[in-house]
Amino acid sequence: MSRELTFLNKDIYPEDVKDLTLEDLNLLASEIRQVIIDVVTTNGGHLASSLGAVEIIVALHHVFDSPSDKIVFDVGHQAYAHKILTGRLKGFSALRQSGGIAGFPRREESSFDSFNTGHSSTSISAALGMAVARDLKGEKHKVIAIIGDGALTGGMALEAMNHAGGINNNLLVIFNDNRMSISPNVGAISQYLSLKFTSPEHITLREKVKSILKKIMPQKGTRLIRRFQGAEEALKAFLVSPSSFLAAWGFKYLGPIDGHDLKTLIEALRHIKPLERPVFLHVLTTKGKGYAPAEDNPLKFHGLGKPKGPELLIDPVNPFPSLAEKRQSLILPDKKPEEASAPLVIDKADGKSPNESQAKELFSPKLTYTDVFGSFMVKEAKENPLLVALTAAMSQGTGLGEFFHLYPERAFDVGIAEQHAVTFAAGLAVSGFRPVVAIYSTFLQRSFDQLYHDVALQKLKVFFAVDRAGLVGEDGPTHHGCMDLSYLRLLPGFVVMAPKDEHEQLSMLKLGITLPGPAAIRYPRGPVTGKKPPAQEQIITPGKGELMKDGGDLTIIAIGQSVWPAFEAAEALSKKGIEAAVINLRFVKPLDEELILEYAEKSKRVLTIEENNLIGGLAGAVSQLLVTKRLSLLAFDSMGLPEEPVLHASQKEQRQKLGLTSEGILARALALVSPT
Amino acid sequence: MSRELTFLNKDIYPEDVKDLTLEDLNLLASEIRQVIIDVVTTNGGHLASSLGAVEIIVALHHVFDSPSDKIVFDVGHQAYAHKILTGRLKGFSALRQSGGIAGFPRREESSFDSFNTGHSSTSISAALGMAVARDLKGEKHKVIAIIGDGALTGGMALEAMNHAGGINNNLLVIFNDNRMSISPNVGAISQYLSLKFTSPEHITLREKVKSILKKIMPQKGTRLIRRFQGAEEALKAFLVSPSSFLAAWGFKYLGPIDGHDLKTLIEALRHIKPLERPVFLHVLTTKGKGYAPAEDNPLKFHGLGKPKGPELLIDPVNPFPSLAEKRQSLILPDKKPEEASAPLVIDKADGKSPNESQAKELFSPKLTYTDVFGSFMVKEAKENPLLVALTAAMSQGTGLGEFFHLYPERAFDVGIAEQHAVTFAAGLAVSGFRPVVAIYSTFLQRSFDQLYHDVALQKLKVFFAVDRAGLVGEDGPTHHGCMDLSYLRLLPGFVVMAPKDEHEQLSMLKLGITLPGPAAIRYPRGPVTGKKPPAQEQIITPGKGELMKDGGDLTIIAIGQSVWPAFEAAEALSKKGIEAAVINLRFVKPLDEELILEYAEKSKRVLTIEENNLIGGLAGAVSQLLVTKRLSLLAFDSMGLPEEPVLHASQKEQRQKLGLTSEGILARALALVSPT
Repeated sequence: MSRELTFLNKDIYPEDVKDLTLEDLNLLASEIRQVIIDVVTTNGGHLASSLGAVEIIVALHHVFDSPSDKIVFDVGHQAYAHKILTGRLKGFSALRQSGGIAGFPRREESSFDSFNTGHSSTSISAALGMAVARDLKGEKHKVIAIIGDGALTGGMALEAMNHAGGINNNLLVIFNDNRMSISPNVGAISQYLSLKFTSPEHITLREKVKSILKKIMPQKGTRLIRRFQGAEEALKAFLVSPSSFLAAWGFKYLGPIDGHDLKTLIEALRHIKPLERPVFLHVLTTKGKGYAPAEDNPLKFHGLGKPKGPELLIDPVNPFPSLAEKRQSLILPDKKPEEASAPLVIDKADGKSPNESQAKELFSPKLTYTDVFGSFMVKEAKENPLLVALTAAMSQGTGLGEFFHLYPERAFDVGIAEQHAVTFAAGLAVSGFRPVVAIYSTFLQRSFDQLYHDVALQKLKVFFAVDRAGLVGEDGPTHHGCMDLSYLRLLPGFVVMAPKDEHEQLSMLKLGITLPGPAAIRYPRGPVTGKKPPAQEQIITPGKGELMKDGGDLTIIAIGQSVWPAFEAAEALSKKGIEAAVINLRFVKPLDEELILEYAEKSKRVLTIEENNLIGGLAGAVSQLLVTKRLSLLAFDSMGLPEEPVLHASQKEQRQKLGLTSEGILARALALVSPT
Repeated sequence: MSRELTFLNKDIYPEDVKDLTLEDLNLLASEIRQVIIDVVTTNGGHLASSLGAVEIIVALHHVFDSPSDKIVFDVGHQAYAHKILTGRLKGFSALRQSGGIAGFPRREESSFDSFNTGHSSTSISAALGMAVARDLKGEKHKVIAIIGDGALTGGMALEAMNHAGGINNNLLVIFNDNRMSISPNVGAISQYLSLKFTSPEHITLREKVKSILKKIMPQKGTRLIRRFQGAEEALKAFLVSPSSFLAAWGFKYLGPIDGHDLKTLIEALRHIKPLERPVFLHVLTTKGKGYAPAEDNPLKFHGLGKPKGPELLIDPVNPFPSLAEKRQSLILPDKKPEEASAPLVIDKADGKSPNESQAKELFSPKLTYTDVFGSFMVKEAKENPLLVALTAAMSQGTGLGEFFHLYPERAFDVGIAEQHAVTFAAGLAVSGFRPVVAIYSTFLQRSFDQLYHDVALQKLKVFFAVDRAGLVGEDGPTHHGCMDLSYLRLLPGFVVMAPKDEHEQLSMLKLGITLPGPAAIRYPRGPVTGKKPPAQEQIITPGKGELMKDGGDLTIIAIGQSVWPAFEAAEALSKKGIEAAVINLRFVKPLDEELILEYAEKSKRVLTIEENNLIGGLAGAVSQLLVTKRLSLLAFDSMGLPEEPVLHASQKEQRQKLGLTSEGILARALALVSPT
């Protein structure tokens, strides 16, 4: 730490914050900010969003009584200040590291964390459940959900708003809106709450109503003007947008207020505290607030140098991509390709962001699987006018940045709305287009029903690029792509594949957009293997695996990122005189029954390896085949992800712990061929 | 048919509707209505919702050009008139019957069906995809989504509205609102679009604005008054509710108009036809419109007698339960239990309704699994004040009607919002309650991510009552509960069970609400077995199966509704001198490894049976176990649901076709024990 800290020189708790003066609270906030910057720039994590919520969290702990009052974070990347203020200062230096505290709220970690989070748009549902429970038990505490502007586009959050308004109980939703104060203009004002107030008839109505209201409510207008940023915006906000919108949903709307002004925040929260009804407090915040380089020059902010890693970069043209842009994919600014070639954000509104360690991948000379996908799409789009790309608030994270800039008319970012994304793609597919839907494995879980009901049952040619499949590292249990092989295998008619390396990925991508039905490719987070490309391009055929090494002592069946480690293990075995066949299965659906049976029969010993749940994926598919064909084996073993969630650590540590490395595979293989 | 038909005496197509006079169109509509009533009261189906949409569909085919203009239905139960008008009159008499036309739109059935449906809230997403595709291809046709008031509470529909407004292309959303005209009052008006306009501050604002607007826009007001139902409602609608709400989402709002007045409908559609932007047409319809008994006496409507089945009944107190009530579960009218004992609706707003054939179950003396669950919940609620019940727009369909009436404060119907339902339950669970979430298997697919992320990862004590698991009969592929054993098995820490009969169901229900973590029970649609209760109550232990019959020639491992048929098959085998052991597995997770291995080892022949996808469920679990333990078998076979979706037919026909009957199992078992 670069200077003496007054408050944060030891663990601190909410009770320590209760009696502080405004001046002290401000000092505390600045110290929290300093700690967050120090730790995150070292360990990685969500910097901008957590800095944006510091004052909100300080004010909450000053006014309310956690843990009896419940604070429910959405996504959870905003919660660092909360962790620091609830006895976890010392642990915070090991944020997201193996054995350290988690990057998201976890009930297992602290009684101050009321609900575990990670995925977007869950906070209002969970908070409403707690508020209803409180009322049934006759308790009196407050329940507070904090949700960002990105998360509020999730259908689940909208369902919860609907229900909350109907129930009409004591619930506070704090809307942490970090778009507005960056660029405080009418356009931004009018677009908040995911709304567009720009349709012609609405403007007419608004103008008329405004001019009248100005006449009849001079007092209220004046009060509002004083409180808020300016007459124009305040009046508009009051008249036709959030207040009536939120009232329509049964909420009392308050705001917008400055989310970095502790005095205003505390006043607002004290005003809300006794209200026993749904309240929606609109708070304007700045992402990265207090991070000096960003504040000095937000448009050319290139981050601060750090000893341990590469620079943190922010897209200079669009430092804070927000909801409004995400949704207007058809009218993206027409960037030049060379600008687009650095699709760099350190953080996004929704917590689905590439975090610092992911940013490392982007900036290091090492290419990632995400990059390969992105390049493929750009190249292919030139040849194929029917190719369209879709993503759910992750155009950069999925590598589609350049595609979005070069082919804005064929690029669709639907916001955090994975369900809609899939069925929207189905609509494009029935109309003759070739939609490629790029969603992280963990978030594609949100679309399970749409994958089945709208794509599989109709046998539509939609191709899913499932990024971050397998272990993801520091984000931990909520973010592993740990089940996709299993749940995608359930979908009738789907082709489900995973490449062993970047060259195979490219071949599979080419295959995926030409198949006569639905298909998915899953690939890992992180750098590619760097293997030499094969002498001639591989022909990939659905349902056909690749025999990478022959051998009669053992058959190792692996897929995706597990294939090369399996191959290396087999080479090590070879040196010990044990010849293992290595099958790169390529497809869990359809299954290469012939190849599996041939080698299982030959070796009588089978080891399956996948970075996926041990239930129902590769191991499940192979087992069902072997049993059905009544192969009697001498040995069988499966390596993969265990039932118990894999906690946050680096990917490398996680793989080592689970033995999903060439050494780990070698050990298991040796055990399998040894006489028992 | 009871009278001569002028238009519907042969197959009819949209082109036949183009040049008809208004008088003829009205006659056509009434003939369509007659055909629907005749067929549905014979075959079963969605009567009320399909009758409510007759004029909308006639007007659409009169004004637009299907199939070049695309009509996308939501859920699809409104589409009968569309099927009749698109060359399927003759086939309509076999509606939902094996080999007849489907109950939902299907592209495989007709080029006039632009998108397959069944589940709720998909239409706007699909239509938007088609509209975007059209624009990219430079085509000019119209794309029209028709969505009901229930479906619009689905988060997916809200995500799509969000996106559609941002894209701002030529799209028509017809909001088929069947609540309003039943009870045309201010309350209903103000609650439409799932909104509440009753919060005090909103009323104040609205009154103020209204009085002013009355002064300044006398002309527009007058025009509106003339067009719509009355000055009050029209002005309110125009001023502060839907127009500004929808404009906010980027839509032009038109309406509300009378959805049974063909003249008005045609005028409105003609007005909209040239508009190249998102339009939201609000249409008020009456459920069951034209069904004479309902119109004569809507509050005491008991339906018409039919030769083939029992009376169709409608809850006399609440004939048309709608969204508003669904959502206000905390303020349900305080019904007496004896009234509540007949929780009867023939149809619901959301297409997730008990249809006629389901109604048959309700009225027949035969108890259903749904009833058993419902009774259990009512009984248990008396003992256990922490028990709470949740459902997603299916309180009657899931058997919770009586619970909702007796324990309204502990009963939550969140509307069509399965995602929210699950995380809301998680919020209740972390607060110490015992939530029981009753959702049909097919709709629980919508909550896959929430089951994992919010319940399983936190190990919360939420119990899922998964109704309609397995084959559902006439609703066909979109509605089978065909994957729950597979996808629930993926969830860490879950206990997943299925009872062989109603007695075991009751024991499992008791177990489920006492387990220390998440659990699910799945049971079929339809009547219980009627088996005698066991002499003493069965002790059900998680992960322990039941040996129903000993035997060394073959081991049949079955679960749920497949157990008794398997047992009967084993008895038949016994008469042939073949002794099959029958294991009622009870749990696919945790698995009774000991019992399975003991008998598989003994008999060397295993047959698994489940009403679930053959991938990843019971067969998958048993296979993985057998392979891992390296059992060498002489024979192995699995019965269950195939990859290819099972088309609409009766449950009995479907089971016979798949061999999921005692006879079918006997045949497969014989093949398995015969020397090959």
